[in-house]
Amino acid sequence: MTYCVGLCLKDGLVFLSDTRTNAGVDQIGTFRKMSLFQNKDRFFTLLSAGNLAITQSVKEILLQGQLFKGKNLWTAKNSYEAAVVVGDAIKQVYAQDHLALEKAGIDFNCNMIFGGQVKGEKPRLFNIYSAGNFIEATPETCYFQIGESKYGKPILDRVLNFNTPLNLATKCALISMDSTLKSNISVGLPLDMLVYEKNSLKATKLVTLDDANPYFAMIHQAWGEKLREAFNSIAEPSWSGAHKSSDISTPAKKMGMVPIIHPPSKAKSPRVTPITKTTPAKKIAKKVAPKKVTVKKK
Amino acid sequence: MTYCVGLCLKDGLVFLSDTRTNAGVDQIGTFRKMSLFQNKDRFFTLLSAGNLAITQSVKEILLQGQLFKGKNLWTAKNSYEAAVVVGDAIKQVYAQDHLALEKAGIDFNCNMIFGGQVKGEKPRLFNIYSAGNFIEATPETCYFQIGESKYGKPILDRVLNFNTPLNLATKCALISMDSTLKSNISVGLPLDMLVYEKNSLKATKLVTLDDANPYFAMIHQAWGEKLREAFNSIAEPSWSGAHKSSDISTPAKKMGMVPIIHPPSKAKSPRVTPITKTTPAKKIAKKVAPKKVTVKKK
Repeated sequence: MTYCVGLCLKDGLVFLSDTRTNAGVDQIGTFRKMSLFQNKDRFFTLLSAGNLAITQSVKEILLQGQLFKGKNLWTAKNSYEAAVVVGDAIKQVYAQDHLALEKAGIDFNCNMIFGGQVKGEKPRLFNIYSAGNFIEATPETCYFQIGESKYGKPILDRVLNFNTPLNLATKCALISMDSTLKSNISVGLPLDMLVYEKNSLKATKLVTLDDANPYFAMIHQAWGEKLREAFNSIAEPSWSGAHKSSDISTPAKKMGMVPIIHPPSKAKSPRVTPITKTTPAKKIAKKVAPKKVTVKKK
Repeated sequence: MTYCVGLCLKDGLVFLSDTRTNAGVDQIGTFRKMSLFQNKDRFFTLLSAGNLAITQSVKEILLQGQLFKGKNLWTAKNSYEAAVVVGDAIKQVYAQDHLALEKAGIDFNCNMIFGGQVKGEKPRLFNIYSAGNFIEATPETCYFQIGESKYGKPILDRVLNFNTPLNLATKCALISMDSTLKSNISVGLPLDMLVYEKNSLKATKLVTLDDANPYFAMIHQAWGEKLREAFNSIAEPSWSGAHKSSDISTPAKKMGMVPIIHPPSKAKSPRVTPITKTTPAKKIAKKVAPKKVTVKKK
């Protein structure tokens, strides 16, 4: 699998990708998923996920500068036109391979994050699908993920917004990647990271990180510790209702508790003890943890 | 979708499930995914994910106490036999429905977490698959998730182990659920939560939580804040190499940086600037952030 994330922020763009590929657990490989295209008046980054044979073909077409309706990445007037070129390259690979893939029972699977800047425009970021169509990031939804995206989504949702400075966003992307690496072995080091500063039209901050990178090693260790500290600093639930702020025994308003099923008596239908929503919380609490209530009375 | 998690720990079992079901975004429903079975000598919890028509049928078969090779949940000698009964119920629903489902192009999708205790045995936890086969939790791998499991996995991987006390594990399960709720709208409140204390043979701590539950509301607010605090407390990356502990510019050992593709000159093949792994880190750093280096010299 793969994990790639692209951020489109006020001050520029951040791209991060892993390099692990796999076709079953016994065919693990290392392939780059980041490609960079630069000329005087433009800078583009492409991150790819999906079937490697497809994504490599797409990349090769772009690299060769093939024209689609007279356009390629070097001649597109703006980032939108460049995204259309990438989409057209995907459509060409589809036309070439999809019948054979269908016969082999393989999905045409190809997801890309494409972003950059053409002089005179602001930086832009696109999520391009297998069909070659795409959506663009906005200040409200300023990031895209492809591949194994779920493990690393919560941290992005918690701390990231359009105004996040690039250096903080870099940290956020790396934590998102670290969470993914920890929970999914199909995503692996090294990582390719690019921080693109608005209007620079070049790869201002580009690095390939492995486990010996001081910053990533620090993130890897510190984030786990900080997370455990944060976890420990939150109060434990109080089942007795003794601590109001951490009382977990308050029943829901619109739904009673889970009924308990007892064995059917004498081959009749099973006996169910419904606990209705009108059961007072205190009564349940007492029933549940009588010892704690006693302690409280002291 | 669904998110359910079951933990098998030294002191007992923890179960947590959401109640949202959906068949497309315009068919959202609320159904319980937790069922409880209790008799004098046994206590079982079943959490279910997948096709609701399938999981409800399985539950009904268990509720009716139907015998499989002379056994049901009430007569199984131990938790393993009880898990076999649940598996047999799934196989029966499969036999009944799979042809019709296949014709409709619908997968036979049914995943269950089943756990509990039979007097004389320790508490046990199983993950039962669509085929009715299952695996059991061990001290090394002490939790199972079903449904939308990825968002909530990182926190479990970071803080949970077999010796975690039940009250801490309860907090951990709720944070795992909160992360899932925040990032995926197909998982929703209320939540059914059961903390089963070893050898109690009953639902000692059982509650249904909605957004008015003081503890869950606190978790929901505090976790986001603590996470942001933890995030802010980690150093930002240093691209200049000025701060060794947070130096992000150190190149990887076995892989050079991403090459930058330039446009082909005079219709020849595209020009690629490879940045080899031998490029010294300091040289890159200086090129990247000259201002910061200047400041340091002052």
